[in-house]
Amino acid sequence: MHRMHRRDFARTLLAAAVVGPPRLSALAAPRVNGARLDAHLAELSAFGRNPQGGVSRVAYSEADRQGREYVMGLMRAAGLDVRVDAGANIFGRRKGRDASLAPLLIGSHTDSVPEGGNYDGAVGSLGAIEVAQTLAESGTVLRRPLDVVVWSNEEGGLYGSRAALGELTDRELALTSNSGKTVRDGIRFLGGNPDDLASARIAKGAYAAYVELHIEQGGTLDREHVDIGVVEGIVGIDQWEVTVEGFANHAGTTPMDQRRDALLAAARFVEAVNRVVRSVPGRQVGTVGRIQAFPGAPNVIPGRVVCSLELRDLDAAKIRMLFDRVRAESDAIAKDSGTTFTFRPTVENVPAPTDPRVRQVIADAAKSLGLTTKLLPSGAGHDAQDMARVAPTGMIFVPSVGGISHAPNELSRPKDVENGANVLLETVVRLDAL
Amino acid sequence: MHRMHRRDFARTLLAAAVVGPPRLSALAAPRVNGARLDAHLAELSAFGRNPQGGVSRVAYSEADRQGREYVMGLMRAAGLDVRVDAGANIFGRRKGRDASLAPLLIGSHTDSVPEGGNYDGAVGSLGAIEVAQTLAESGTVLRRPLDVVVWSNEEGGLYGSRAALGELTDRELALTSNSGKTVRDGIRFLGGNPDDLASARIAKGAYAAYVELHIEQGGTLDREHVDIGVVEGIVGIDQWEVTVEGFANHAGTTPMDQRRDALLAAARFVEAVNRVVRSVPGRQVGTVGRIQAFPGAPNVIPGRVVCSLELRDLDAAKIRMLFDRVRAESDAIAKDSGTTFTFRPTVENVPAPTDPRVRQVIADAAKSLGLTTKLLPSGAGHDAQDMARVAPTGMIFVPSVGGISHAPNELSRPKDVENGANVLLETVVRLDAL
Repeated sequence: MHRMHRRDFARTLLAAAVVGPPRLSALAAPRVNGARLDAHLAELSAFGRNPQGGVSRVAYSEADRQGREYVMGLMRAAGLDVRVDAGANIFGRRKGRDASLAPLLIGSHTDSVPEGGNYDGAVGSLGAIEVAQTLAESGTVLRRPLDVVVWSNEEGGLYGSRAALGELTDRELALTSNSGKTVRDGIRFLGGNPDDLASARIAKGAYAAYVELHIEQGGTLDREHVDIGVVEGIVGIDQWEVTVEGFANHAGTTPMDQRRDALLAAARFVEAVNRVVRSVPGRQVGTVGRIQAFPGAPNVIPGRVVCSLELRDLDAAKIRMLFDRVRAESDAIAKDSGTTFTFRPTVENVPAPTDPRVRQVIADAAKSLGLTTKLLPSGAGHDAQDMARVAPTGMIFVPSVGGISHAPNELSRPKDVENGANVLLETVVRLDAL
Repeated sequence: MHRMHRRDFARTLLAAAVVGPPRLSALAAPRVNGARLDAHLAELSAFGRNPQGGVSRVAYSEADRQGREYVMGLMRAAGLDVRVDAGANIFGRRKGRDASLAPLLIGSHTDSVPEGGNYDGAVGSLGAIEVAQTLAESGTVLRRPLDVVVWSNEEGGLYGSRAALGELTDRELALTSNSGKTVRDGIRFLGGNPDDLASARIAKGAYAAYVELHIEQGGTLDREHVDIGVVEGIVGIDQWEVTVEGFANHAGTTPMDQRRDALLAAARFVEAVNRVVRSVPGRQVGTVGRIQAFPGAPNVIPGRVVCSLELRDLDAAKIRMLFDRVRAESDAIAKDSGTTFTFRPTVENVPAPTDPRVRQVIADAAKSLGLTTKLLPSGAGHDAQDMARVAPTGMIFVPSVGGISHAPNELSRPKDVENGANVLLETVVRLDAL
């Protein structure tokens, strides 16, 4: 399916190339204002700031809403024509010379995980606005329109970009997000319209290309002192809600050998996930990040535990194989402990390779700026994996110090952020010229 | 220490015996109204009722407050003079013939664990009120005053009876209870006065005896078809809040071999607790009933986990030995996983033997009613363990069907509840006559 997409993308770009020759003058485009971008990052980090550093700007929260208001202000200041679509995604348009051409799309997201950092999503969102601002200030008018997008609820499961694919189901709209609101209420809270999601749909070919700047969130670029990561693809991410049912009973009067302790079974499950994922070579990862025991009192044997399971790899078949082995382990634990395990799929994102031509443009752009590059996969999911299904898509990574992300001390150095925004700017100019 | 207490108790009872001879006429006292007691249990179960059965009437909640209002109404209807002490314990007094004598005290609690059952605490509280009502209806006036007590917040850690011992600390008053309120705010919410706890204090010798009727919460009486359990002692209960610190990081970009996953370490801890407790012979139990991972998102490696640890045994030295072994195991897990474990004691209840004379009176009372008895320990903690330090104390158990407790399908049969209340009535009459 992705191979077929790549053929489509090639046609799109070739069709574009017929319209006019590369504008070599654009290669001398001005550079972004790194200090301003750094200041904007600091200002955005005020929304949802935590005492211990970083932010809890979970999607659909008041902090999220306020952060988005701030960002829309920046977009208007950059001369962009701002609108919020039915999926609560923010779009800001800069006109091109030829309104009949498919626009380019750049952007990222501004929501965070609970107790997250100041760079994940923010760098790409504010970097894209900085690119638009730089184009405006330098009087550079591209052939194509340029849209800057800030996707809604990326961290909860790419809800904004999946709304743009027309894929949000009623079941998902009814799910409760980390904000405490349902997805439906959250979209409405941010100014979207969950009853008119069809209007948010982006058709295949509607955009000439999508490019997302992001922090790596892993330690490869930082460890190897590489300036820019050119993303070869985004791993598949499957998540399940796992429910372990045992039997709640009094912790003082129930002998050890007569218990059906759901938390003891869940503990064995957590260990099994780790053991299974590490039992085969490769870069796959598996995580249990959330857990709750019910009723949840120190003097009651847990009768039920609900926890999450997440598996990631560039190869969908490997994820399936790992899941099958985890299930087999949980069957054995259930049998041994008098409990039952049920797995409810909550997120299913197939691996998404980026477009080879966009990849090449990014690498060339970086080289033209004197920056070193490395081709690498994205272990994290991104809205780019959704856009890859409707537009030629690329991703630009900048280093994360120590590989730390989704944590308060997440950090990308100002110079690296500036480099990333300049590569994004140069990539936009080059894609426009194709 | 407990041996010394028993000598004190003996003196108290002997002193009482000097006042007058046993009133043998009292042995012909009327019996309780089992149908009414059953109806009262059903009525109380409406407060905090859960759709799946049972109640969540956690201490200091609105359901708890309403349940107590209902119970105070029953006490007044039984002719008791009702007051709420500074620790939010409800006392209802029935006058005796000699106001100079130390009163007898009977009662239990009406709060529940989250998702608990309809019998734990309720049987003893309503059973004690039924005893008072029966005395009133039959015109039986005891020598001694009789107090019926409903202790506050038993399930959270015997807060009401410990307030009566003058043992609640400022630290404990500041703890957040299952209701969401601090203990201090909760006591005030129920009509107590946390700033005047000294007034709630019960001095040693103030009561001639304390007797608590309760469901067994274990399966021994039900399995062996015994009518009445005579409790030989209450196990010691130690609880800790255990914090595991690892390092929160992105679940997609952090390789498996570079994680410091606090939940994986906590899972190993949960297994270790079970293994250690089962590694030695005896009736000791150990439980992890509550767990939370932070930040608690499916796509973030947990950086911190907070869970509970509880150990119970009739022998304090064994609890200490088990805890030392659990700590040694956690040290090994910490070293292996790059995490740290800290243990904060939250509850420390030493084992409490009941008074041998009160035990004998209960056994004799049961036999006089044609009921079978068995001497057994209480694996559950009770307010009786606190009262055992200031008054000769006994406990009467009635069977729990299937040994199920702290769960919605907790059940004690109406006939067994009636038997228990009759044994309590007969015990009161006999103690009064000593």
